[in-house]
Amino acid sequence: MSQTAEIPSNNQPYADLPPIISKLFEAKARKGLTFEDLAKTIGRDEIWVAAVFYGQAKMDPADLDALAQALDIPTVAIQKQLGSHWWPNRGLGPMPPTDPVLYRLYESVLVYGHAIKAVIHEKFGDGIMSMIDCKVNVTKKPDPKGDRVVLTFDGKFLPYAKW
Amino acid sequence: MSQTAEIPSNNQPYADLPPIISKLFEAKARKGLTFEDLAKTIGRDEIWVAAVFYGQAKMDPADLDALAQALDIPTVAIQKQLGSHWWPNRGLGPMPPTDPVLYRLYESVLVYGHAIKAVIHEKFGDGIMSMIDCKVNVTKKPDPKGDRVVLTFDGKFLPYAKW
Amino acid sequence: MSQTAEIPSNNQPYADLPPIISKLFEAKARKGLTFEDLAKTIGRDEIWVAAVFYGQAKMDPADLDALAQALDIPTVAIQKQLGSHWWPNRGLGPMPPTDPVLYRLYESVLVYGHAIKAVIHEKFGDGIMSMIDCKVNVTKKPDPKGDRVVLTFDGKFLPYAKW
Amino acid sequence: MSQTAEIPSNNQPYADLPPIISKLFEAKARKGLTFEDLAKTIGRDEIWVAAVFYGQAKMDPADLDALAQALDIPTVAIQKQLGSHWWPNRGLGPMPPTDPVLYRLYESVLVYGHAIKAVIHEKFGDGIMSMIDCKVNVTKKPDPKGDRVVLTFDGKFLPYAKW
Amino acid sequence: MSQTAEIPSNNQPYADLPPIISKLFEAKARKGLTFEDLAKTIGRDEIWVAAVFYGQAKMDPADLDALAQALDIPTVAIQKQLGSHWWPNRGLGPMPPTDPVLYRLYESVLVYGHAIKAVIHEKFGDGIMSMIDCKVNVTKKPDPKGDRVVLTFDGKFLPYAKW
Amino acid sequence: MSQTAEIPSNNQPYADLPPIISKLFEAKARKGLTFEDLAKTIGRDEIWVAAVFYGQAKMDPADLDALAQALDIPTVAIQKQLGSHWWPNRGLGPMPPTDPVLYRLYESVLVYGHAIKAVIHEKFGDGIMSMIDCKVNVTKKPDPKGDRVVLTFDGKFLPYAKW
Amino acid sequence: MSQTAEIPSNNQPYADLPPIISKLFEAKARKGLTFEDLAKTIGRDEIWVAAVFYGQAKMDPADLDALAQALDIPTVAIQKQLGSHWWPNRGLGPMPPTDPVLYRLYESVLVYGHAIKAVIHEKFGDGIMSMIDCKVNVTKKPDPKGDRVVLTFDGKFLPYAKW
Amino acid sequence: MSQTAEIPSNNQPYADLPPIISKLFEAKARKGLTFEDLAKTIGRDEIWVAAVFYGQAKMDPADLDALAQALDIPTVAIQKQLGSHWWPNRGLGPMPPTDPVLYRLYESVLVYGHAIKAVIHEKFGDGIMSMIDCKVNVTKKPDPKGDRVVLTFDGKFLPYAKW
Amino acid sequence: MSQTAEIPSNNQPYADLPPIISKLFEAKARKGLTFEDLAKTIGRDEIWVAAVFYGQAKMDPADLDALAQALDIPTVAIQKQLGSHWWPNRGLGPMPPTDPVLYRLYESVLVYGHAIKAVIHEKFGDGIMSMIDCKVNVTKKPDPKGDRVVLTFDGKFLPYAKW
Amino acid sequence: MSQTAEIPSNNQPYADLPPIISKLFEAKARKGLTFEDLAKTIGRDEIWVAAVFYGQAKMDPADLDALAQALDIPTVAIQKQLGSHWWPNRGLGPMPPTDPVLYRLYESVLVYGHAIKAVIHEKFGDGIMSMIDCKVNVTKKPDPKGDRVVLTFDGKFLPYAKW
Repeated sequence: MSQTAEIPSNNQPYADLPPIISKLFEAKARKGLTFEDLAKTIGRDEIWVAAVFYGQAKMDPADLDALAQALDIPTVAIQKQLGSHWWPNRGLGPMPPTDPVLYRLYESVLVYGHAIKAVIHEKFGDGIMSMIDCKVNVTKKPDPKGDRVVLTFDGKFLPYAKW
Repeated sequence: MSQTAEIPSNNQPYADLPPIISKLFEAKARKGLTFEDLAKTIGRDEIWVAAVFYGQAKMDPADLDALAQALDIPTVAIQKQLGSHWWPNRGLGPMPPTDPVLYRLYESVLVYGHAIKAVIHEKFGDGIMSMIDCKVNVTKKPDPKGDRVVLTFDGKFLPYAKW
Repeated sequence: MSQTAEIPSNNQPYADLPPIISKLFEAKARKGLTFEDLAKTIGRDEIWVAAVFYGQAKMDPADLDALAQALDIPTVAIQKQLGSHWWPNRGLGPMPPTDPVLYRLYESVLVYGHAIKAVIHEKFGDGIMSMIDCKVNVTKKPDPKGDRVVLTFDGKFLPYAKW
Repeated sequence: MSQTAEIPSNNQPYADLPPIISKLFEAKARKGLTFEDLAKTIGRDEIWVAAVFYGQAKMDPADLDALAQALDIPTVAIQKQLGSHWWPNRGLGPMPPTDPVLYRLYESVLVYGHAIKAVIHEKFGDGIMSMIDCKVNVTKKPDPKGDRVVLTFDGKFLPYAKW
Repeated sequence: MSQTAEIPSNNQPYADLPPIISKLFEAKARKGLTFEDLAKTIGRDEIWVAAVFYGQAKMDPADLDALAQALDIPTVAIQKQLGSHWWPNRGLGPMPPTDPVLYRLYESVLVYGHAIKAVIHEKFGDGIMSMIDCKVNVTKKPDPKGDRVVLTFDGKFLPYAKW
Repeated sequence: MSQTAEIPSNNQPYADLPPIISKLFEAKARKGLTFEDLAKTIGRDEIWVAAVFYGQAKMDPADLDALAQALDIPTVAIQKQLGSHWWPNRGLGPMPPTDPVLYRLYESVLVYGHAIKAVIHEKFGDGIMSMIDCKVNVTKKPDPKGDRVVLTFDGKFLPYAKW
Repeated sequence: MSQTAEIPSNNQPYADLPPIISKLFEAKARKGLTFEDLAKTIGRDEIWVAAVFYGQAKMDPADLDALAQALDIPTVAIQKQLGSHWWPNRGLGPMPPTDPVLYRLYESVLVYGHAIKAVIHEKFGDGIMSMIDCKVNVTKKPDPKGDRVVLTFDGKFLPYAKW
Repeated sequence: MSQTAEIPSNNQPYADLPPIISKLFEAKARKGLTFEDLAKTIGRDEIWVAAVFYGQAKMDPADLDALAQALDIPTVAIQKQLGSHWWPNRGLGPMPPTDPVLYRLYESVLVYGHAIKAVIHEKFGDGIMSMIDCKVNVTKKPDPKGDRVVLTFDGKFLPYAKW
Repeated sequence: MSQTAEIPSNNQPYADLPPIISKLFEAKARKGLTFEDLAKTIGRDEIWVAAVFYGQAKMDPADLDALAQALDIPTVAIQKQLGSHWWPNRGLGPMPPTDPVLYRLYESVLVYGHAIKAVIHEKFGDGIMSMIDCKVNVTKKPDPKGDRVVLTFDGKFLPYAKW
Repeated sequence: MSQTAEIPSNNQPYADLPPIISKLFEAKARKGLTFEDLAKTIGRDEIWVAAVFYGQAKMDPADLDALAQALDIPTVAIQKQLGSHWWPNRGLGPMPPTDPVLYRLYESVLVYGHAIKAVIHEKFGDGIMSMIDCKVNVTKKPDPKGDRVVLTFDGKFLPYAKW
């Protein structure tokens, strides 16, 4: 749904990001696009595109062009702030997070972290699930008792070096 | 692979759990069972069974019986400490976690938390993914460039009450 | 009681909220309305309306229209900042809170948290009181020895999933 | 339901409490009593009795006698540790709490704290809801869409002194 | 001693307070008044008046009038920011405090807190000294070995509710 | 009131103190003495004696003798642990304190700290109230509306050195 | 060495200080003066003068005059912000400090704190070295193996009050 | 003054140190030796010897022999725990320290840290005072207005590498 | 690759640095220079030059001239903010760091810190690797299984003083 | 140099590790072996072997055999605690570390972290240096001005996934 939006650039989490970020969000709202719409247009996944909007992923020049076109913003305006000289300073906001959506993710580490670690070791040996070579996905799973969110992390297993 | 194991009950994270927990781990090692094996025997998922082993989930009497049988431990020994009078005091260990496996999960909140939240809202509206009515799953996905860990959270969407 | 008010938008907790928030408070003061008055006009409860004023709840377009009308503010001015593109980033201010009103609520968790948890488990089993599907209410209970505040949380019980 | 229980006195939150506390819990389990049962026997509310069990409230000699009788524990054993020389050192466990039941209470302060404060001030003026002269209550409210927990704080309003 | 003063409103602790606060301090300096002088004029104690200046206490309309008159500031200018719509968000600055004057007060809790608690319980029973119904006072006690500061808290004893 | 007491030496705050401390408390309870009683016997103030019991003040040999006599404990048993080789490692327990009695003292710094500092400077100039050369006192002030706790700090003013 | 300097007043630690502070530093650089030079001109020690520049010490009117003259700044400009109405809010910057010079001082407490405390008690008894009546000094001690910094604290011993 | 001492090895700061440490302190007390006495016997400075007693410095075999002889403890008993296989894990106790003696040292960093840094840079250039090649000294300076503690750090200046 | 860049000076970590820093980064991007290019031009190592850009190292006047020339910025503009009156206030950003590149460095201390310490002591004795007289280097090591980052710290060993 | 050693298993960092760890250290000291000696015998690098001793790396059965043989400890004793059922819970000790050797490593992140990140990005693009596929090495580099520690991290570069 298209609407006129004002993103206060001094509000969290925008205040820690380049100011063009607010403009991206305002353009996305003005054009009434979801991240899913944008992702299809650009040829990427919606979570990755959303990560770009929160300054957590880096687009290459072709991505930036496609984004600029999709949002009707001059490419140069985006490149000035998010171009090849810019590297994301990842991580956003204080921990533990206070927003309930974010906190439930954090709680998953508190409650299920040790169980997940134990099963990873049993299935793969001594190593980790990479959060760098990792794809993240959110889908909606209809359910008569209430729809469900299916959140998936698909990360490469990295065994510890021995030397 | 069966082996004789000693779980020092004053080591983290066991020190914060009922002492029977060490005995469960030692019996599991002695019988050479994985959480997957145990889960099949009991008729549950492996992550949920692992969560029980870390004191993060509560078995009912029938579950406890099945577990006791699978591990050759007297049911009463388990029930004394994990029986119906016991309620998990969930959450285990300091945050941020220092172990790299756990930290990478924590990092997923830092880096992708806002993107996940934004997509949940776009797909479902104002609400959260429940971490209470949530099923957690870890599978191994073979890949010629290196096997991948697929970690899935399947949680009910809960819309915020308005009143 | 109507009065001319100035809400400094860089004061806590307003500094972390969209600037229209200050305007809402100023209009409410100028018109001499309480949250109870506003809630009646809009057809909602006063705590929920107050939560909106602190950026902790999301109104749908009809709510925003009603609020705009009640406060004599153009709907579009509110929608620009709190419209459908906006999702609350809930949680407000540092913890532990320093204001005595807020601290006493925090203290209730410190002192009575374990007792409340134990009784919830005895009455409902293993699960939680939802803070998402929860209605919060404050009423005044006259008492000759000094009036009393009655604060009620009415939240859905959510049992833990077993899988 | 009566059962043989073992409360490991070095587990949290028991490790910070007098060791007789474990014995009280074990006796309560052995006799199959709920806090509601105990409260009726002693003539108190269940949350207050549960608070005693977590070392957060102080019984007078008559209360201790009644408790000892209800649990078949010699009064002197309880009085040695919880008698008139003992004063609760209230507060239990690290904050923010990690257990989801406790965390949801904590989250209520994060999300609804400012709204509650605002409405208290509008209804009562400048002052607080006492957490000392406060009665806490948990009841079960059946609901076809899922039973609800109703948690009530009934605390005296205390106006700030001016001098 | 009268002087021209400039209170930088972005310096701590003023930055967390309504901007009129700086004006109150500047007017007080310009007129060469101490808090004792102001307190006498207004008919209050100096610590309470100082608390108002630090945004920690709330004046009623008559107090604000008297203050405005004493400082030659238009009442309306003060009322806009500290009027009936404004409620103090008490607490000021990070803890532990770094300023030695404030730290020594904090240190009194570290060193003498348990002793004070023990004596309060022995003299009054289970309960607290209210910090809401409490009057604070600072006087100078001449002493040939060096003048002494006498700081007094006179707070109502509140016994814990039993229910 | 005399009673048999057991002070669990691994409970806070005793766990951080020499074990003789528990014995002192148990003897005091067995003999039914208050700190006021002990203070009169020894010729000191009750808060200072209580501070000794919490390991926060150092008695000289004559004080220790008097204390040993008052409690019927052999002097040598006390001197072994609290004798001339022992120096208090002052400070007791985590901050912010969770017990409401202690927290209210802490809150006095949060709410009235700046006001107290300002008035000290106005009355004495640039310097502090010493917490080393400071006498602390608690008295009961009867009041028909509820008895009051009067807590007094009488500390030497120390001006800042200029050099 | 004289130079044109610009002190960004929003950089740490200047951002927490009155803005005149930046002007003092700029004037000092412009005139090419060291703290030692300034101290000689004013008749004080260089560390104390440097403490004034960092808002950690309070000059009296005569000091301010001398400083204004030495720096060619109008006295009134300094007095407006650092005059008799101003009291230092001491303490500067987060702890532990991250700058290696500051951290090494902090490390001295971590590593040698207990040793220093033990020797002070052996030489003086129960009490402290005052940081209020304390003179701090830095001198350069030439050494063929590398010059040495000699940092001296000369503070009054304060014995604990007994009462 | 010789005395029989008992150092509870589970008291802070001894609990984090090898248990032989308690024996060293007890022997020192039994023989009535100060750190100054011990230092003279061993041919070292008293602060360095005290640092050894708090596990913050490492003696070579000859030092250990001399210490063992001075305290009438078998060398082998000390070498087993503090011998050549042992390396101090320096740093002792939580920060900020709560004991007033330690806190005043910490406060010196808060209040005078920036001034000390500025003067070191002016006198030496860009670099630090080493806390590794540093000698620490405490002396008593008699003064009719009250004896003074003179605490000196004599540390090598280390310029930053440029490469 | 040359590009027009805008570095928002209120973004982290630039917000804590002199504003000229943003200009340096913008000029470097405009001229399409890497730190390696700049380092060769100036005759320094690239990590040291990058440290200068992040305000963590201090250039002497000749370095500043060379930098100004390499970037086509007037020397005086740089000297005003980074000249001889300026001393780095080292340390940048909150810890633990959230960006994955920085966090992996931090993790190396968590996981390998004790092993590195043990080997340093075995090879060198009691002392440290200086981080002041230390050269840091990053090189790219091609590898068919994926290129590798080789990060080297070459720091002087400093033995602890004994005195 | 061979010696009889006693490693107190309740001292940090051993207290958080399986108790066999103390036995490994004691055997290593008794046999007078360095980590370099052990590494050669086992066919591994010394830092990796030291990491095993601090519970930060996992040996396979063949490694454990070799270690047991080198230390004259029965293999089964080691396998019981560090065998195939055991997975390191990596991370050791509080942060920031207080020991100067560890702190200097931590300081390298504070001071050079951003510079290292910038150069990694310039040389490799958007990604990280893996701390999982990373080899760590410490060597001694003789230098007439004082020997130098050369610490090297050789970690695989991991580019961020785009999806």
